[in-house]
Formats: sequence, structure tokens, C-alpha cells
Amino acid sequence: MGDRSTTVKDLSEREVLDLILPLLTAGEPPLESGEIGPGDDSAYVIPASGSGFLVSVDAVVEGQDFLWAWPSGREHLPEDVGYKSMAQNLSDINAMGGIPCHVFVSLQCPGATPVARLAGIARGMRAALDELAPGCRVSGGDLGIASELTSTVTVMGEPAEGGPVRRSGARPGDTLAVAGRLGWAAAGLEILLGREAEAAQGTAAEQLIAAEQLIEAQMRPRPPMSAGPAASRGGATALMDVSDGLLRDAYRMARASHVAMDLDEAALTRLAAEIPSVPSEARGRASAPAQPLTRVLTGGEDFALLAAFPPGDLPEGFTRMGTVREGAPVVMLGGRVLAEEGFDHFG
Amino acid sequence: MGDRSTTVKDLSEREVLDLILPLLTAGEPPLESGEIGPGDDSAYVIPASGSGFLVSVDAVVEGQDFLWAWPSGREHLPEDVGYKSMAQNLSDINAMGGIPCHVFVSLQCPGATPVARLAGIARGMRAALDELAPGCRVSGGDLGIASELTSTVTVMGEPAEGGPVRRSGARPGDTLAVAGRLGWAAAGLEILLGREAEAAQGTAAEQLIAAEQLIEAQMRPRPPMSAGPAASRGGATALMDVSDGLLRDAYRMARASHVAMDLDEAALTRLAAEIPSVPSEARGRASAPAQPLTRVLTGGEDFALLAAFPPGDLPEGFTRMGTVREGAPVVMLGGRVLAEEGFDHFG
Repeated sequence: MGDRSTTVKDLSEREVLDLILPLLTAGEPPLESGEIGPGDDSAYVIPASGSGFLVSVDAVVEGQDFLWAWPSGREHLPEDVGYKSMAQNLSDINAMGGIPCHVFVSLQCPGATPVARLAGIARGMRAALDELAPGCRVSGGDLGIASELTSTVTVMGEPAEGGPVRRSGARPGDTLAVAGRLGWAAAGLEILLGREAEAAQGTAAEQLIAAEQLIEAQMRPRPPMSAGPAASRGGATALMDVSDGLLRDAYRMARASHVAMDLDEAALTRLAAEIPSVPSEARGRASAPAQPLTRVLTGGEDFALLAAFPPGDLPEGFTRMGTVREGAPVVMLGGRVLAEEGFDHFG
Repeated sequence: MGDRSTTVKDLSEREVLDLILPLLTAGEPPLESGEIGPGDDSAYVIPASGSGFLVSVDAVVEGQDFLWAWPSGREHLPEDVGYKSMAQNLSDINAMGGIPCHVFVSLQCPGATPVARLAGIARGMRAALDELAPGCRVSGGDLGIASELTSTVTVMGEPAEGGPVRRSGARPGDTLAVAGRLGWAAAGLEILLGREAEAAQGTAAEQLIAAEQLIEAQMRPRPPMSAGPAASRGGATALMDVSDGLLRDAYRMARASHVAMDLDEAALTRLAAEIPSVPSEARGRASAPAQPLTRVLTGGEDFALLAAFPPGDLPEGFTRMGTVREGAPVVMLGGRVLAEEGFDHFG
């Protein structure tokens, strides 16, 4: 079992579990009185607040959501797969103004998967929990065989004092605000896919550092986890995470809230300027200056938060990004209606 | 979208959801005040009892857990895939003495999957909920693309009045009892795999009827859902579902409870006699009479319940199957220690 060439099909389910469960649960606080952790038919979890739970489920699939080897030649570490699978689920609780407290991990993988790879995924998941949701416990899960690696995480959280915040409550006159990064992960994906390889391999050390920052943003997204509960406490009228690009997700909030969204070009430009530059001028493109703004509008997977607040001060971590207006559910920039774009898993 | 040749990749994620979510949630009771259903980043669920939730997650994978076309020539209907995926998860709540109240469905499928097939899966899931857990709500989920169909269901339940019952509380002197069927689903699997084809195609109408009953038991397992809460109310000291065969699961309970299990051969034989017979005499095997008992001991996927109760009357639905004894954690039959056997997902 210590041999790094050992694969999943060499071991029993019990043996694989004995390996990865301690990695997943390392350093967790003890169970609350009456609670039941992994190992029985179900876990039994009791909300600390005495009210209810936020619950979300999301899957990450090899070949669809990540590649073990990218066209750029970059390898994808199992630790990073585990980190992102966990981070994007924790974000869904953050996106309701909640604090994650229990996760359930369902891992399906080919029988020929090295057990060391599963251990790496487990370590990456634990790292994400420790960084993004300390105190959150792995309370159960499931292991199985499939032809490609799939990690499905169910996460439960408790709402902050302001209660759960939906995406449907934005009102005309509210301030539209964002917490976290936009466009970084998408830029990192371009590099991994080899589409920005020339720039990343440029002579300047700054370019290499920028490329590494963007790849890190794609592989280890860090949702702004304190901003969700802060939005709940700060009276947010609407809240959601930006997983498929600001434009597409703002359209979703506009439709759910029956309002129009008017984005502020200056604010978007400031966010775009924060993206580490792997200068496209290096490739002599005429359209270079427009690209970062497009990325802020359409780049997904940074798991920033989009929120609407009544007029007034914004909670810490949020930046003004526009205004909610009465009208048809569209997203506008500089008076123009923007076409809905972004990433669709099926399209 | 009404065209049965439409595949998942012809539609957007939203369109697929608009098709299957109404099928999944058909006939559900309205949300409790303050609860949030599907459509936001997370659901928000509030326990009716004011205490906690039992939670379990389990996946069903095409090629591993079912085949769209079996060696026997039998097709697997999407409705049956959905039914079983849901039933086996509901069983995990039953196995703790609980009542399922919320499920979350994560479906991954190839882009070329006919949308009608997803609709069938959704209808089968709803049928299982209506039959096995009326009042249970589909509160969220996730859709994605993968190279094979995977259905991962997370289920939440509330414990019955006796509280959650673990597998670790059996005590020497307790009565070992079973609720539900044993060996039926395994016999059905043999037929689907074509291993009992001769018998199933025999001349007698009774043989055909028996074969259909066994296939139904494999494709649409019906866990004894009232027996779990009855065991909790009836003071069960240990409880679990039999998903991998009585022998293997009794070993699990024995180890968790630090006791020996002494099975009653007469009781096992009575259970074996209940399995509809697709007579193996038809094939002239000398070993025929022993086979049904083996099936009762090793056949999985009927999702019966195995329980330990203090001496005295058993709750409705349970039949005495043996005695819990002091000793090393083994399972015995007629004074002999049985070797641990059964189904392991990885072995």
C-alpha cells in the first residue's frame, strides 16, 4: 500500500477508505454530542444554530473540468483537482451568505488509478477546507469505479446572522457590487490550453510569475469566503457566486430579481487592470487592450461574489460594480444592452 | 425538444433542467416557510423535528452498476435506472431508523444521451420517491457531461422517535432480525447476465413469471421503508441495510459492535424458500438445493434491514434470524464460522 504504483483495483474498498479518510478528516474538531460521522449508513448532523442547513452538490469530471495533462504540457496535480472540487462547492454556500460546516465526498475513478493519486486528491480537499472553511467536517461519502475520475461534493452550511440570501431579491436603486477576482481563472485556462504559450514563455521573469499566478487562480480558486456571511449581515438583497462569468451570472440575477443591471465601465476596467498581465502586445495583436475587459465580463471559475445592496456603505470586501435599475431583465454597459454570453456546460 | 432523437448536447443546461426538474418534483408538497428549493446556489432546508439530519450519498455508474443492454438481451429502461439510484439511497436513511425528507440529484451523462432518456431517469426517481418516501422533496442538484452516465444522489432524513440507530450497538443476548427480502436481486442479476437463461426460457408460465419477479427485484429494489423507523421506535440496538449480502454485512455489524453473530439455519432456509424459483433442477445440477441458501447469505442489493433487538417481541416487519453472542467478531451458522464473502466494489 506504500508502493506508489499500487492502483485502486489492487485494494479493497475498505483499504482505499482507510487510506484517504484520515487524509480528508485530518485535524477536524471532535463530533458534537449526538452527531455521527463517517462509517455508518448515514451521518447524523445537528445544526449549531438550531435552524436549518444550506445544501449544495456539484461534480468535477476528468476530461470535462480538468485534464491530467494540459496541451501546454503542464501536469495537473491530484492535490489541485481535490482543492478545486472542494473550493467550488464551498463557494455555493458562501454564495447564499452561509458558512460551510459538513461535506460529503463521492469519488468515482478507474480501477487503474494509482492509489497515491486518490491520496493527493484527498490532501487537496483537506487543504481547501483548512484554508477556506476551517472547522468544516468531512462527514461521509462514497467510493466507486468509473471510466473517468469524477468527484461529487455535497456541502452543507449554516446561514450567517442575516439569514440565507437568494439571487432573487435585487431591487431598483440597489448598488451592484463584487467581492473577489474576475477573469483570472479564465486567463489561467488559456495558458494551460497552450493558447498563451508564447507570452508565458517570454523572456521577462515578470511574465512567468504572472503566468504562474493565473494558473494558480485556475487550479486553486479561492472564493472570498468571509464576504458571503458579511453580505448576509450587511443586508444584501441578492447574492450569488460568479461561476460562469459576470455577464451570464448577472443575467441570471436580473431574471430572478425582475430588474435590469447597469454595469459601471470604470469599475470593470479597474478589476481588469488587477489581472496579472501576460501582455498580449507580445504577440502584436491589434485587439489587445479590449481583451482584459472581455475576460472580466465572461471569465468563469474565480467564484467571486455578485451582490446587490441597498444604497449606502458596502460591507468589507465588496467593490461597487454598477446599479440595479427598473426594467426588462438585461445587463447593460454604457447604456448598451450586452448580449448574454459565457460558459454553458451543455451548449 | 419534443423530438425523441434530441440529445443533451442539442440543448442548453437550462433547457435540460426545465425538462427534468418538473418530472423530479412532480406532486411534491409546498416548501415549508423559510425553506429554499432548487434554482439558487444552495437549497435551504429546515428539520421539522428541530433536531438534526441523517445524510448519505451514493453513486450509480453505467457499466459498473447497470448496463443499458444486458447479455440476456434485456434492455435496461431509464425509469429503472432512476428508480434504483433513488431506492438504494433512501435505504441508507431507513438503515439508520430515519425517514427521508430531502434529496439532491447530480446527473452526469454523455452529450449524445437522448434527452428522453434523462426524462425517463427523472420519472423513475420520482416513482421511487412516491412509492418509498412520499413527502420527500428533490431540493437541488447538478447536471454535467461525462463519458458514461453517473447518478449521484445525496439524501437527508430525520430520525424516528427512537433516534438514529447505528450498526455498532448490538449486545450479547440480542436477537438478530431481518426485514425485507434476501437473495432476490442477486437471482435477478444472474438472469440479466444470461446465466440462468435456459431456466428463464423454460416452458412453464410460472418460470417466466418467477424470472420477471426476480428481474424486477434487481431493477426496482423496494427497501422495507417502514421497518427502519419501526426499529428505531422498537428499541433496536443496532441497524444497517444489507446492500452487499447478509454475510458480509453481518460481519460489518459484528466488527462494529464487537460481538459474534450466530445465524439460524432454519430461518435462513425459510427466507430462501420465499425466493421465486427458476428451478435449477431444470438444468440437472447436483448442487441445486444448496444454491438458494448461498444466495440468501451472499446476494446483495435487496436493501433488506439487519437489526439487533433486546430479547422480546420484534417490531412489525422483522423476522428472527439468529442471536448475538459474546466473542470474536465472526458470523456463525450451525456452530461453524463462515468465511466472509460477498460483493466488494474494488476487489
